[in-house]
Amino acid sequence: MNDSNMTIATFQAALKEGRAEPYDWWHACAAQIQKREPEVQAWEALAPRLPALLSDVDVASKPLYGVPVGIKDIIDTTSMPITWGTRGYLRSSGSQLNAALVTLLEQQGALIMGKTVSTEFAYFTPGKTRNPHDPTRTPGGSSSGSAAAVATGMVPLAFGTQTAGSIIRPASYCGVFGFKPTFGTLSCDGVKPLAASLDTLGWFTRHIDDICMTFSALTQAPTIRALDNLKGVRVGIHSLPVDEPLTPDVEQALANAQALFEQAGAEVVPLNLDARYEALVEHQKVVMSYEAAQSLASEYKNYAAKMGVKLVELIQQGRNTSFHRYLEAKRATSEMQQALAQVFSEQVDIILAASAQGEAPKGLDATGDPIYCRAWTLLGVPCLNLPLSQSSAGMPVGVQIIADRWQDVKLLQIARMLMKMSSSSPAQ
Amino acid sequence: MNDSNMTIATFQAALKEGRAEPYDWWHACAAQIQKREPEVQAWEALAPRLPALLSDVDVASKPLYGVPVGIKDIIDTTSMPITWGTRGYLRSSGSQLNAALVTLLEQQGALIMGKTVSTEFAYFTPGKTRNPHDPTRTPGGSSSGSAAAVATGMVPLAFGTQTAGSIIRPASYCGVFGFKPTFGTLSCDGVKPLAASLDTLGWFTRHIDDICMTFSALTQAPTIRALDNLKGVRVGIHSLPVDEPLTPDVEQALANAQALFEQAGAEVVPLNLDARYEALVEHQKVVMSYEAAQSLASEYKNYAAKMGVKLVELIQQGRNTSFHRYLEAKRATSEMQQALAQVFSEQVDIILAASAQGEAPKGLDATGDPIYCRAWTLLGVPCLNLPLSQSSAGMPVGVQIIADRWQDVKLLQIARMLMKMSSSSPAQ
Repeated sequence: MNDSNMTIATFQAALKEGRAEPYDWWHACAAQIQKREPEVQAWEALAPRLPALLSDVDVASKPLYGVPVGIKDIIDTTSMPITWGTRGYLRSSGSQLNAALVTLLEQQGALIMGKTVSTEFAYFTPGKTRNPHDPTRTPGGSSSGSAAAVATGMVPLAFGTQTAGSIIRPASYCGVFGFKPTFGTLSCDGVKPLAASLDTLGWFTRHIDDICMTFSALTQAPTIRALDNLKGVRVGIHSLPVDEPLTPDVEQALANAQALFEQAGAEVVPLNLDARYEALVEHQKVVMSYEAAQSLASEYKNYAAKMGVKLVELIQQGRNTSFHRYLEAKRATSEMQQALAQVFSEQVDIILAASAQGEAPKGLDATGDPIYCRAWTLLGVPCLNLPLSQSSAGMPVGVQIIADRWQDVKLLQIARMLMKMSSSSPAQ
Repeated sequence: MNDSNMTIATFQAALKEGRAEPYDWWHACAAQIQKREPEVQAWEALAPRLPALLSDVDVASKPLYGVPVGIKDIIDTTSMPITWGTRGYLRSSGSQLNAALVTLLEQQGALIMGKTVSTEFAYFTPGKTRNPHDPTRTPGGSSSGSAAAVATGMVPLAFGTQTAGSIIRPASYCGVFGFKPTFGTLSCDGVKPLAASLDTLGWFTRHIDDICMTFSALTQAPTIRALDNLKGVRVGIHSLPVDEPLTPDVEQALANAQALFEQAGAEVVPLNLDARYEALVEHQKVVMSYEAAQSLASEYKNYAAKMGVKLVELIQQGRNTSFHRYLEAKRATSEMQQALAQVFSEQVDIILAASAQGEAPKGLDATGDPIYCRAWTLLGVPCLNLPLSQSSAGMPVGVQIIADRWQDVKLLQIARMLMKMSSSSPAQ
């Protein structure tokens, strides 16, 4: 049990054939947590007891039956405390009801393993988590614990949120798949908002198949099958922003991905997005700070003195942002969503781009820069980190692929086919 | 104090000139509550004590200083219980932190008077509130208590939410101004979601000036001034859907509004929106039920047996909605948002439309039909109910005016000028 090659589908098959018991994966993950957690520090809290499972359930009807799941510590649960990444200056012993996501996961048979470490209110101030590939480096953030827990096999599936680059970046740094679906795909009920027009629930896995399985389980979309090949699929290469230097490691990762796409029959073309797309990076900062100043108004009023410097800066920046400037950013977003829809309908099927500027930076006092994710998050498009490469230092380096809004299924069909071509197994 | 002609600006002037004390309006409202509440039943809970006010505040810098405010009982407060309109099957004695809106109001000097009655989770099952103009009729919903409290002068300002027609409809039925700003204008942190891509915080007042003042206070937009006249302003008349019959009272209200616009110099033209706009009414139902089934997953799991029939139907409908059908609705929404932006840039400045099918229906077992609001809410556009007319039975009948997304200031500038022309004072 719990070997790194096991997918959710493998486990379901073992259950059906009587080769596994429903709590087997849970116990295997619990053992892995005992082994890796002291070094990695991915968990804010663990479930106080074994969650109940319906005994007479039809396994086939519950795609996540018996699957242990980590959830970021900005998501409400009744049975576990929540700190919102504050390291305790704000803390609740548990919410009155579970977040909608938690109930939906439980209804699909999932077992909530615990709360994973978040940065402070899902912004920049790091929690205790270390990169599982090198404990002197950041795992990325803000969904730090979720990415690290999945990378180390402590759970096969964990949830996070992305407001700037909080899923794609830690997925790249930790060497796992990280998926941010189209904005609005999953309900954020019971999830602490940072910037409500950006906040998006997403998830991490070690296998592309598990990304797809989870998407179908939570949206009730039909099963996502791999395309037979990628003939006719047009992949545009364009990282945003273009004027920030990528490290050679990321250039190499993009080249590797390009080669893999071409091997699968896709046509890879350079894509030129004009300066209006570049401006989205700054617009994202404006939207994020303006909305965070609103969303965190009560927290700021009560705990400003205890907040991290970066968070205070963000809120103050938001308070000083004029409504006019905010509107300018919102209008530019709408305009570029339309323009990009045109690009996706006429020029390319998906975009291939950098997930981050480089490998996970050294040090635990920051979580790296989300700059390569800001524009895509603002546009609300689905983004998937593919853990395809390694840096010269042996650290994971991902790339992201991007589709138009609500083209999640197409993106995942392409990714599933691509990963069949890939001989490189994700980092463990 | 508290005569129906007093606006927030009047009160601020009285404060500055020493003719009023900061708690005067509060006490006047408290007296009005004693008088009207037994019949109207607008409140779920009242503030347990006088809220604190900073004594050395610069009144000019706090636009809502001393203004008593009602907030819908799906909005978190630390000092008052919350029932989410459940009549007690779900109840909390108070949240750990105030909703962001509450803190922002307090920072502008507002005094939270209490929690106003909501329908069950802001959907259809009515609370106890009666229409202040006729206690045998519904006040509308879901923001029932907020509309009724403002209509009776129990507070000059109250907040609600709109997911289908929950601000515009009760405003029309109760004879007050009701404003649903562009989707996303105010943070819904601490507000229970029903359908997150539709839920919009908005507010009720007896005066257009107070709608404007509140908008500026909460968004930090500059003061909204009335236009000198409406020359050059193009007003398109088009209610959605067109195939539902309006009562003669509403036809008359639209004619009254048209006359007023023309008197102010505007050009009123019939606007023909094609069948794709009609389809938005059904798309709104799809989005609302699909998202509500997610958002209320935990509530449904724990309290389905206690929920109202309509709410259970909504959730079950959502659970039976395919992802494909949901996507179809979301894509149609994006497409029509673009198309409508074109209409607003080329053909008209604002749209004049029915707020509801007729006057407030008889009976307290339902809250009327939001059908004339569904499409506009789905599109995310700002909508303002103008309480301009009365039915043959003497009940209030409003009309709504609508602008393109993020054109709230323009909409309010036009409305403010229009109301200067109007000799009819809002119903009291």
